Amino acid sequence: MKLPEEEGSQSPAWASRCGGGGAVSAAHVEAVIEVRQRASGSLGGDAVEKANSGHPGLPMGCAPIGHVLFDEIMRYNPKNPYWFNRDRFVLSAGHGCMLHYALLHLAGYDSVKEEDLKAFRQWGSRTPGHPENFETPGIEVTTGPLGQGVANAVGLALAEKHLAARFNKPDNEVIDHYTYCILGDGCQMEGVSNEACSLAGHWGLGKLIAFYDDNHISIDGDTEIAFTEDVTARFEALGWHTIWVKNGNTGYDEIRAAIKEAKAVTDKPTLIKVTTTIGYGSPNKANSYSVHGSALGAKEVDATRLNLGWDHEAFHVPEEVKRHWSRHVPEGADVETEWNAKFAEYEKKYKEEAAELKKIITGELPAGWEKALPTYTPESPADATRNLSQQCLNALATVLPGFIGGSADLASSNMTLLKMFGNFQKETPEERNLRFGVREHGMGAICNGIALHSPGLIPYCATFFVFTDYMRAAMRISALSEAGVIYVMTHDSIGLGEDGPTHQPIEHLVSFRAMPNILMLRPADGTETAGAYKVAVLNRKRPSVLALSRQKLPQLPGTSIEGVEKGGYIISDNSSGNKPDLILMSTGSELEIAAKAADELRKEGKEVRVISFVSWELFEEQSEEYKESVLPSGVEARVSIEAGSTLGWEKYVGKKGKAIGIDRFGSSAPAGKIYKEFGLTVENVVASAKAL
Amino acid sequence: MKLPEEEGSQSPAWASRCGGGGAVSAAHVEAVIEVRQRASGSLGGDAVEKANSGHPGLPMGCAPIGHVLFDEIMRYNPKNPYWFNRDRFVLSAGHGCMLHYALLHLAGYDSVKEEDLKAFRQWGSRTPGHPENFETPGIEVTTGPLGQGVANAVGLALAEKHLAARFNKPDNEVIDHYTYCILGDGCQMEGVSNEACSLAGHWGLGKLIAFYDDNHISIDGDTEIAFTEDVTARFEALGWHTIWVKNGNTGYDEIRAAIKEAKAVTDKPTLIKVTTTIGYGSPNKANSYSVHGSALGAKEVDATRLNLGWDHEAFHVPEEVKRHWSRHVPEGADVETEWNAKFAEYEKKYKEEAAELKKIITGELPAGWEKALPTYTPESPADATRNLSQQCLNALATVLPGFIGGSADLASSNMTLLKMFGNFQKETPEERNLRFGVREHGMGAICNGIALHSPGLIPYCATFFVFTDYMRAAMRISALSEAGVIYVMTHDSIGLGEDGPTHQPIEHLVSFRAMPNILMLRPADGTETAGAYKVAVLNRKRPSVLALSRQKLPQLPGTSIEGVEKGGYIISDNSSGNKPDLILMSTGSELEIAAKAADELRKEGKEVRVISFVSWELFEEQSEEYKESVLPSGVEARVSIEAGSTLGWEKYVGKKGKAIGIDRFGSSAPAGKIYKEFGLTVENVVASAKAL
Repeated sequence: MKLPEEEGSQSPAWASRCGGGGAVSAAHVEAVIEVRQRASGSLGGDAVEKANSGHPGLPMGCAPIGHVLFDEIMRYNPKNPYWFNRDRFVLSAGHGCMLHYALLHLAGYDSVKEEDLKAFRQWGSRTPGHPENFETPGIEVTTGPLGQGVANAVGLALAEKHLAARFNKPDNEVIDHYTYCILGDGCQMEGVSNEACSLAGHWGLGKLIAFYDDNHISIDGDTEIAFTEDVTARFEALGWHTIWVKNGNTGYDEIRAAIKEAKAVTDKPTLIKVTTTIGYGSPNKANSYSVHGSALGAKEVDATRLNLGWDHEAFHVPEEVKRHWSRHVPEGADVETEWNAKFAEYEKKYKEEAAELKKIITGELPAGWEKALPTYTPESPADATRNLSQQCLNALATVLPGFIGGSADLASSNMTLLKMFGNFQKETPEERNLRFGVREHGMGAICNGIALHSPGLIPYCATFFVFTDYMRAAMRISALSEAGVIYVMTHDSIGLGEDGPTHQPIEHLVSFRAMPNILMLRPADGTETAGAYKVAVLNRKRPSVLALSRQKLPQLPGTSIEGVEKGGYIISDNSSGNKPDLILMSTGSELEIAAKAADELRKEGKEVRVISFVSWELFEEQSEEYKESVLPSGVEARVSIEAGSTLGWEKYVGKKGKAIGIDRFGSSAPAGKIYKEFGLTVENVVASAKAL
Repeated sequence: MKLPEEEGSQSPAWASRCGGGGAVSAAHVEAVIEVRQRASGSLGGDAVEKANSGHPGLPMGCAPIGHVLFDEIMRYNPKNPYWFNRDRFVLSAGHGCMLHYALLHLAGYDSVKEEDLKAFRQWGSRTPGHPENFETPGIEVTTGPLGQGVANAVGLALAEKHLAARFNKPDNEVIDHYTYCILGDGCQMEGVSNEACSLAGHWGLGKLIAFYDDNHISIDGDTEIAFTEDVTARFEALGWHTIWVKNGNTGYDEIRAAIKEAKAVTDKPTLIKVTTTIGYGSPNKANSYSVHGSALGAKEVDATRLNLGWDHEAFHVPEEVKRHWSRHVPEGADVETEWNAKFAEYEKKYKEEAAELKKIITGELPAGWEKALPTYTPESPADATRNLSQQCLNALATVLPGFIGGSADLASSNMTLLKMFGNFQKETPEERNLRFGVREHGMGAICNGIALHSPGLIPYCATFFVFTDYMRAAMRISALSEAGVIYVMTHDSIGLGEDGPTHQPIEHLVSFRAMPNILMLRPADGTETAGAYKVAVLNRKRPSVLALSRQKLPQLPGTSIEGVEKGGYIISDNSSGNKPDLILMSTGSELEIAAKAADELRKEGKEVRVISFVSWELFEEQSEEYKESVLPSGVEARVSIEAGSTLGWEKYVGKKGKAIGIDRFGSSAPAGKIYKEFGLTVENVVASAKAL
């Protein structure tokens, strides 16, 4: 379909009439980038590698939505992408990121200049193949793995609703923004999006407005082959308001009307189903799967430009389009200035609240916050680390204004309730206990959204450690996108007993030790649990996983918070000169076994060192000197014991050492029995040590 | 509520009138087991460990559904739990397994005798804390992690629909069974169930009948706090027929009528929402979360027995109940005998089909099947292992009658289409290409159901390797439940290039190496890909994960299928006497780099061995002699190279060796550039080797 030719109009009417400066431009920029990509590929690069390096389909189809949002609806300041009260935009269908880059570019963000667009998908560029918040200011969250983005958007909208309820005053609504999201058929099929959207409906997140790009095409072809459900009926069942925009290709007024209607519904999130043509504008490839994930090709780009009546050079943004968009820089500055004045008013009138809110906005931790953490001595009663964790959570909630979280329907098992707060619900959004239901994956992705809403929001979430398998994709995004979510993972070993192998994590510790930029912590007692929380709170740019016991553990002599901060440290040693006869090392619930085995061996005259290896990652970050002081290379008699896979322990026990662990699935029986049958006993450690 | 007293009636009318022998008995058996559990705990065990060792709530609430199914509806043979054409039953809410155990016991299964019930949740028993197919004949699949079971049920129903369409004849419908499932609120909240149920609706699995135990209670209390969606409306949107049984506690006739109605709807699966009271019968704990996961307690057990008018000894099944159920053994034998005659008829008339079907029923592989695998020489053209994989898949599909599978909307990227078959769809269920849509988790769980339907069904499924994070929970169940699913995972490293870190697996190889009972295979070329498929097909009791490249790889001299079967083997060596100067080891796409580095070093006079480490697990299973012949302990100069986490490689390179890999997230850029920047180069291997 040929659009009417533009004639230099600079008004929004121009945008509306001819498809929009942003709209055509977004499609255009994508198209010309593909040209450039392919050109450079055919000139000097590897053609095969260039061949599949972009997803033009969504940007071309969704350009009108993007245009209306960024040019007319959203409040943002291009020169300060981190302005607190900005509207948030999430492209859940992250493969279409060129749409977002093009919009940021046109709106005047410094993060996406012409040279950035030209470096699309190249080493070191700010325009990677999927949107990454840590690379590109203006990108809120990291999307690409489908379904994550819309769940992040639920988290962003939750954060807004919570903060607004806590801090807004009748005379000063200092928090007041929308969360917009574009999601595609792929996102809709993913279970995580159903989980998160079910919660969004339950919580009544009225300021969440999601556009469903209903283009009927996914990589395998027409969605008819795998996706024939009635999506809007499903969303209505989930408690959403739904609207259908039938002409998403050119129906600007319909899109505007839908947004207006969505804003008017304040007690429900809104799904706007927008029927579009993937690759709209491409005369031969539109409405086909071939336009989803591959470049158009030079010939088709030419045909598309002809079809759209677009005769400008590659990468060229016509003057009238520039002029049209140029207002967003001054307007954005004004919007922020206005808000700053509003906040100043707020600060004057509501000093205490403003101070608290400021901490959430900036991420500054209150001075001395860590003193709130509970302390323990070896005389403190034995307790499960999940219970000790609850003491920490409750202590932290009193001093950290942005501490908020909950469990996936296991609050009473994970011990995660904040006793001084009620439940965050539709009618009580000022509260801080989140009730995620049995939705681990959605929980993790929602927490990513909360963490990335504001630097001072510190979300925690909880389930049984084994069920990290359900939410691993979200946890990886926490790690990659530097979202400091705290994962409170209880029932961390066969120590949970009777529930059996489906519930007993075996390979999970090592699987997180291998994941970049995430801290795997397995504390052994109260002191170490407090230490683990200290580390988790301080690490705002990497998530932490705390593996906690269901069963009671004694408070061990020698454990310390400082030790935890080093990841591995000596808790007891009867040798001198850094030359023990034997080194025993362990984590969490088995540290007690190691300590007892050391006692036995010392009785027999051995010089034995016991190391708590609470976090491998932190230990690896220590100096070589420190590491040598803990694990002297001259001592080869080493035994590790941990109720999990032995894989990776070779690194620390060495070739001559012995790793005691579990390299099979667990079993349904009382915990003590399983420990015994699996050889996780003092006797076995002593025997293994002697055998060395 | 007190039920009318039974008076020795032995007819189904008795069951109907008084709550059913099975119904009361199931609740009763659960209750008395709890008594026994607690009793033994208080006598000699650890009271703490016993305190939380059962989930009486669901069995008590769902006993009527279970009773009607097992006593009136289902066709099965208690003395042959593996009879092929049996109706399948899946308790997706696996924590309520005592219901299933009680029903199997009453129906006469040898796997659940009185002593088994008494050993509930004890070491070595056949009645573990969640249902495990590998422990208890009569249990179809392993459930417990919520949402998996209903997705397995979709797989079971798919298998039935497929086989029926392929093999049934107008005069002999040799395949004809139902799949029943009970799922709870927890299963409903999990995204995986929405994924699988969306597909079930799409596929029109008319013989899938799922009971939704709508008891409004989950662990955190009333489901109102997190789950207020309209479940039946959602299922209608997913293309299901829905029915609501309002009185699930005693409404036997309603349950019967609902099943009748469900059977009459043949083009849609049916969800029967059954409103029940959790812990029905317990006067003080029913309808509370405390009855979900904890024993009732001796006092409440007594009160419950009084309330239900049940005055028999613990574990005692009254004579009239026994008599009532006793018919199932002869009836079951008759049902199977009848079917055997039917099959004999079929065999006579449809010889070829019967032979094929028999292989699916028994799991016997056709003689010489492995000869169908393609062969390659070093002269064969370079190709991506994902493409070579497609050649294997297509070769296997011609010789293995039970080979069936597909991709999560990436068929054209994963290269998984079977070219000789069409798509399995509602109207073409005889075809073998499954189109899962973007639903990785559902895909894995559905494949578990297919694999466990019949020993000869060999399902494969595919996505990008990084998205195993979405389906890891299902993959773990494959491993645990001995379901030999083949996971075809392409785009297995930074070699995929521009899509960037969200799409580049780093920690995934090690995370599966650590998982028990699953084979992680990373072939380097065509020969090794064929070898990997040989291994995967032969391992019917453990799943395999094949990590395959997006990028082209050369066919390497020295690779072999026999080598792959050993997991690690020498592909080239210019030394003698098992004493090379240096050992280079690698997997997959980096084996080429190792081979080239060896060439360089050999030019300089070094004696270098190159090892392909295609599967660590298989290598570990070899004899010590073999392992020593490949990795002589005397040779400490070892370098590994793999485009993934180095964690675990210490085991093979040793303390003095060097592991080259990636311990950070990837990057969006052309693949070659990333390899270079990350040091995965011939030069770096050579330099590292020289540095040793």
